[in-house]
Amino acid sequence: MDGGIGKMGRRRFLGAGGAALAAVGGGLALGSAAEPEKWDETYDVLVVGTGFAGLSAAVEARNAGATVLVIDKMPVYGGNSVVNGGDFAAPGNSFQKEAGIEDSPDLMLKDMLKAGLGLNHPELARTVAERANENLEWARDYIGAEFTRLNFHGGHSVKRSVQTVNQSGSELVNKLLGKAQELGAEVVLRTKMDDLVTDASGAVLGLKVRRGYKWPDEASGKAAFFRARRGVVLASGGFSRDTALRMVHDPRLTDEFGSTNHPGATGEALLAACRAGAMDVQMDWIQLGPWTSPDEPGFGYTPQVCERIVGYGLMVDPATGKRFFKETGNRKERADAIIALGHPAVILGDAAAVGSQVVPLGLQKAMETGAVRKFDSLQGLAQAYGIAVEPFLAEVARWNGFVEKKHDPDFDCMIFPDARPTATPPFYAMRLWPRVHHTMGGLVIDKEARVVGFGMKPVAGLYAAGEVAGGVHGAVRLGSVAMADCVIFGRIAGRNAARIA
Amino acid sequence: MDGGIGKMGRRRFLGAGGAALAAVGGGLALGSAAEPEKWDETYDVLVVGTGFAGLSAAVEARNAGATVLVIDKMPVYGGNSVVNGGDFAAPGNSFQKEAGIEDSPDLMLKDMLKAGLGLNHPELARTVAERANENLEWARDYIGAEFTRLNFHGGHSVKRSVQTVNQSGSELVNKLLGKAQELGAEVVLRTKMDDLVTDASGAVLGLKVRRGYKWPDEASGKAAFFRARRGVVLASGGFSRDTALRMVHDPRLTDEFGSTNHPGATGEALLAACRAGAMDVQMDWIQLGPWTSPDEPGFGYTPQVCERIVGYGLMVDPATGKRFFKETGNRKERADAIIALGHPAVILGDAAAVGSQVVPLGLQKAMETGAVRKFDSLQGLAQAYGIAVEPFLAEVARWNGFVEKKHDPDFDCMIFPDARPTATPPFYAMRLWPRVHHTMGGLVIDKEARVVGFGMKPVAGLYAAGEVAGGVHGAVRLGSVAMADCVIFGRIAGRNAARIA
Repeated sequence: MDGGIGKMGRRRFLGAGGAALAAVGGGLALGSAAEPEKWDETYDVLVVGTGFAGLSAAVEARNAGATVLVIDKMPVYGGNSVVNGGDFAAPGNSFQKEAGIEDSPDLMLKDMLKAGLGLNHPELARTVAERANENLEWARDYIGAEFTRLNFHGGHSVKRSVQTVNQSGSELVNKLLGKAQELGAEVVLRTKMDDLVTDASGAVLGLKVRRGYKWPDEASGKAAFFRARRGVVLASGGFSRDTALRMVHDPRLTDEFGSTNHPGATGEALLAACRAGAMDVQMDWIQLGPWTSPDEPGFGYTPQVCERIVGYGLMVDPATGKRFFKETGNRKERADAIIALGHPAVILGDAAAVGSQVVPLGLQKAMETGAVRKFDSLQGLAQAYGIAVEPFLAEVARWNGFVEKKHDPDFDCMIFPDARPTATPPFYAMRLWPRVHHTMGGLVIDKEARVVGFGMKPVAGLYAAGEVAGGVHGAVRLGSVAMADCVIFGRIAGRNAARIA
Repeated sequence: MDGGIGKMGRRRFLGAGGAALAAVGGGLALGSAAEPEKWDETYDVLVVGTGFAGLSAAVEARNAGATVLVIDKMPVYGGNSVVNGGDFAAPGNSFQKEAGIEDSPDLMLKDMLKAGLGLNHPELARTVAERANENLEWARDYIGAEFTRLNFHGGHSVKRSVQTVNQSGSELVNKLLGKAQELGAEVVLRTKMDDLVTDASGAVLGLKVRRGYKWPDEASGKAAFFRARRGVVLASGGFSRDTALRMVHDPRLTDEFGSTNHPGATGEALLAACRAGAMDVQMDWIQLGPWTSPDEPGFGYTPQVCERIVGYGLMVDPATGKRFFKETGNRKERADAIIALGHPAVILGDAAAVGSQVVPLGLQKAMETGAVRKFDSLQGLAQAYGIAVEPFLAEVARWNGFVEKKHDPDFDCMIFPDARPTATPPFYAMRLWPRVHHTMGGLVIDKEARVVGFGMKPVAGLYAAGEVAGGVHGAVRLGSVAMADCVIFGRIAGRNAARIA
């Protein structure tokens, strides 16, 4: 039943590549797989991945009348979506209306294209901006996810990101999973996609998988063939944890850079799609998050504190005690600026800023890891981080002057209307050092979520959504746009994959 | 004999892509081709492309004892190499020694990595820097190309580029072609590669081509299968003239941007390789040349005048009469700065600068097209380009002060030791507006010029060199490094393709 593809694949390539090209993992199957004599399972729609995109696709495909199987290689659901902060950018949302904040899809699109350096595929970015709010309402009203706060993220022109009640994407993943299963979609874990199965014309028929795969043991699991009568949706995420693949596209991103991602965020499903003829795009735009702490692992709790106080507190270079970049800049701008320092930056907020902006539970957790620290005085804070006290106090005073005027002549930081001088103890501070967070590149899709191949035409039977797809964000994904992107294109992919050809 | 591949390919894809995804041309064959019942031609090594890389490969493959066929789809030899300016960057070359200029491969590598924003595959960039001078000597002593001048190109730390006697790559193309044919390589024009032929394991066996192809008629030509007993070398160039493909990777590069390239610089051979499993990289780094004139078509003669006077004369924004960017910046920096103006820039040099730096024949040709104009006074020059006279004269005076001190406090332009104030009539000036010039991205290769596939391992039997390969230059190719890149990796590819497996 294995069809000899693995063996054939291993004969396909000779010798070893350069240092950056060591195999991604053991046991890669190479090339697309041919149709087996017998399929082990048959569904109308197969979905790869149980994050926002995959589960949204499953819900829509079931609602379109398709039988649906969702697979995930990991032993847990949700991929990166469950370690995500749960912020959903949606212009014109109800929280903005309550707060009297004017916003529009055009303004969000403008922000996305500016951050994306104009590399965004315009029709994809526009789809996200225009449909974000209706999809937020779908997530809330139809799926049942609870959203309770309005947040700002760097690079956006206004506060437009609505956050889940538990400050985590898990709120939406769990509700989506429940809905998908309630609707009759089947969801199985420890099932890894090794290859697409294509017919002689290259159309996608289904998947060659391994059932009982035990991550990260590449020798584990038993091969099986799953038929997709109507379509396959790839929603397998990005490759931030795939050092070999990310170094092909950006050789600087060695193992010395950590990642915020779940350990399964590797690129083998994306590569399998390319071997089957899917075209990749903008793979060299790999985002570092500027709000992670070297004092805790992974994504950690720091981002939920740091990102809430930008526009309220100041970020300094501990070597000089002075600010060096706009706190509300986009992720790439800030990460590049911190890396250019050569050492971690320090950001701080006072009791008023932290008290009004940061969710108490998040603060508590970040303090338990030691990544966020509390100080009775600015002097004490400076000493703790080895910052020369006098220049630092002068800089805080200068910043406070800007806050009074709501204008930063040094770096054009966006200072929020309710921001107050950093003056009320206790003060909270944390160190910042970037980690690999998001891979903007991926498979080329059109606005119907059809994967486009190296023949410059859609590949029959293949759809993609979420981080595995490229072009939506161009050079830089803005914070909180991933959730919108995943839900919007996940739903489009699910509906289209369920169509009878 | 056609094997039905074309028909099969056309069935492979459904529907139409987005606006940016219109077909590259008519009649694309899709997927790799299967082995035919009978091969029409059989050689040890097949080379696609008759530019610097392809012909260098042919010479080396013949010298390694292989029978060699070189094909080119166009009715003329040389691709972009014959419209290139004939500059070959080579640290430590004899012209530098004569001029007392210190240089080293390490310094050139540093310049390449800086311009490349660190995206260069380090082992590829190092190969170019370390082997450039020995390959320049090979081109001169073994191939017989004549080099007569030492030039500067923006982004290099020193003058290190040695130019052909006729200021054109045609000098080297013609000598390479002569040598290849003298050694017994066969070279045929109007023969287009449509697909790689692979065996069941994905190893490359040869090419499916069309003989008698009449560019740009995609319906022309007759299918044939060419066997490569040892290896195929792709040296088919970049895709600067392929608007659909470049818009997939950078949607801003619509047809409104012209190109310096020959009309056949389209991406179908690159895409065919990807359909056969080759991996692409950094395709979204597409370079605009900052030295082309809107007053003449294509590459034109302006670059040979403009690029010789940077570091001697000043470049101004005609709207203000003032300088706006460093004249000796790299191509991307300068092109971005001019595009940001929203209108063409003007660069000028006086009789002394132009007389000492510009080849008289090149100047004459550029003046015949009207792209370069001559003025008796700075006032007359300003009036001709609609520049306000007073601010412009003040800016020239300011610039001349920098030239006296050999230091530009405004933009850190590199002012050459023999530069003199811009003061001696007649004055020469030209408008500058960028055109698409080079595609840094392409197929992933290792330092043995083996093409690496989406299985993260080399594809058996497939080699690539020159602009069709990616990773050497990262984000920005410096001027005059292409010629070194093409000769170096062309030779490596030719030698390795000729090896008996």
